[in-house]
Amino acid sequence: MTELQWRRQWKPDLSACPWKPLPISKVQADTADCFLVKSKFHDDFYEFLMTDMVHFWYERLSGAALKRRVMELNPSIEAPMSKILDQIRQSLESPGKETRLTVRTSDDKVVLEIESHLAGMPFLYSFKAAGAPENMARDHLTVPLMAMVGELYRQQQELFRLLAAKDRQIDDYKAQGARLYRKVLETAPFDEVAFQNSMITSKGFEEEVKTFGEKAFTSCGQELYREITTRGLGYSARRSKRIAKMAWWVRMNPRVPQA
Amino acid sequence: MTELQWRRQWKPDLSACPWKPLPISKVQADTADCFLVKSKFHDDFYEFLMTDMVHFWYERLSGAALKRRVMELNPSIEAPMSKILDQIRQSLESPGKETRLTVRTSDDKVVLEIESHLAGMPFLYSFKAAGAPENMARDHLTVPLMAMVGELYRQQQELFRLLAAKDRQIDDYKAQGARLYRKVLETAPFDEVAFQNSMITSKGFEEEVKTFGEKAFTSCGQELYREITTRGLGYSARRSKRIAKMAWWVRMNPRVPQA
Repeated sequence: MTELQWRRQWKPDLSACPWKPLPISKVQADTADCFLVKSKFHDDFYEFLMTDMVHFWYERLSGAALKRRVMELNPSIEAPMSKILDQIRQSLESPGKETRLTVRTSDDKVVLEIESHLAGMPFLYSFKAAGAPENMARDHLTVPLMAMVGELYRQQQELFRLLAAKDRQIDDYKAQGARLYRKVLETAPFDEVAFQNSMITSKGFEEEVKTFGEKAFTSCGQELYREITTRGLGYSARRSKRIAKMAWWVRMNPRVPQA
Repeated sequence: MTELQWRRQWKPDLSACPWKPLPISKVQADTADCFLVKSKFHDDFYEFLMTDMVHFWYERLSGAALKRRVMELNPSIEAPMSKILDQIRQSLESPGKETRLTVRTSDDKVVLEIESHLAGMPFLYSFKAAGAPENMARDHLTVPLMAMVGELYRQQQELFRLLAAKDRQIDDYKAQGARLYRKVLETAPFDEVAFQNSMITSKGFEEEVKTFGEKAFTSCGQELYREITTRGLGYSARRSKRIAKMAWWVRMNPRVPQA
């Protein structure tokens, strides 16, 4: 397959969808764990993955089964399936004030109930996810997180390099006797070690640790996650036990089309 | 307990020990998964945690059981237990050229065999770890990784701020007509969006994704991991279902003693 053919056939899948913290209501948040969810909605099916960071639950539902569940919960509904799927997606991904999400976990299952409104009428839906295949935790969370950390360190090295370059430019001006007009703009020469130390001892570090990483999947993090997993496309499907030989898909697919 | 009392009693535990890629021999690396290990050696016991990113295996061995295993594998050994534990630790943490590590996994167990030399004599040891308690993956890998990502984004914001400050200083010099003596030192004004884009499209990004995050636990990453898990001390022990109320230990222990 040529790269062009491959690009044409490629469709973003669940891997490339970023995690989001589940916005369950505050009342429930006090009595339950925090959850991350990710989902991918297609024309007539969806994939849904949810975790409390210990368990991973997965559901893929399509066609007749999906229709049946919608009818059971909303006997008088008459909207086309595409509109219903869109409603479910919206309730999950950007729930409005009227949307209520409730989580019930039991043993190896999780039920996420959605109460919302469709065209002014109450609309109910339940995701019913069972234990995910054991490698989904690795492929969707652990390995992408490790890659994000690796990449963020690489970006940090580049930023250190840029700061050093600016300091050399400033030194050149100073060597020629240039003086600041606005003294307040004077900066201290950048020092990597001092920077790392000051970050770790700052108030902000305490604040960050307090959140237990819930900011890992805010806007920047989601974008980086998407980039990494998009490049890593096929990682899980093509992964054999021979991890050391696994990098071939990167060489085969030097540039992956963007979603 | 006052903070001083708490500081005196506090001992670094397995949580605060960073992960390391297991340096198994190249021959085996071709036919096996990559592994991460972490361990904590005390006076007469050790804790050992290992993962292939899907499974987590744990062993805590002490006293008589530890002695028995050492004697079985090395019938003629006469060294004191502290020296033997030190030998095991060194073979695992900084194996020399003569040290050979072999991994055998089966179902719910993993055996890590170490062949090395103690005082010129062959020395054998086997870690035998069974499936770890289910929350160890979260407490030792998932949540610390998420916190690392969150913290690295915070550090990145600070670096962006520093670069902008240097640009303002440079602008001030220029506004006064200062010229570079060495033209080659000229830098472009820093632009966050352009920076993010250039990083994601760079050759280095491909290289980074190729490693599947194995650089997450190199020197910088290990230090950050240690800081985060040290502050997060008691996270798992004191964690109740009410994650929203969990941050109290940070407020209670504003500064945690360093290892």
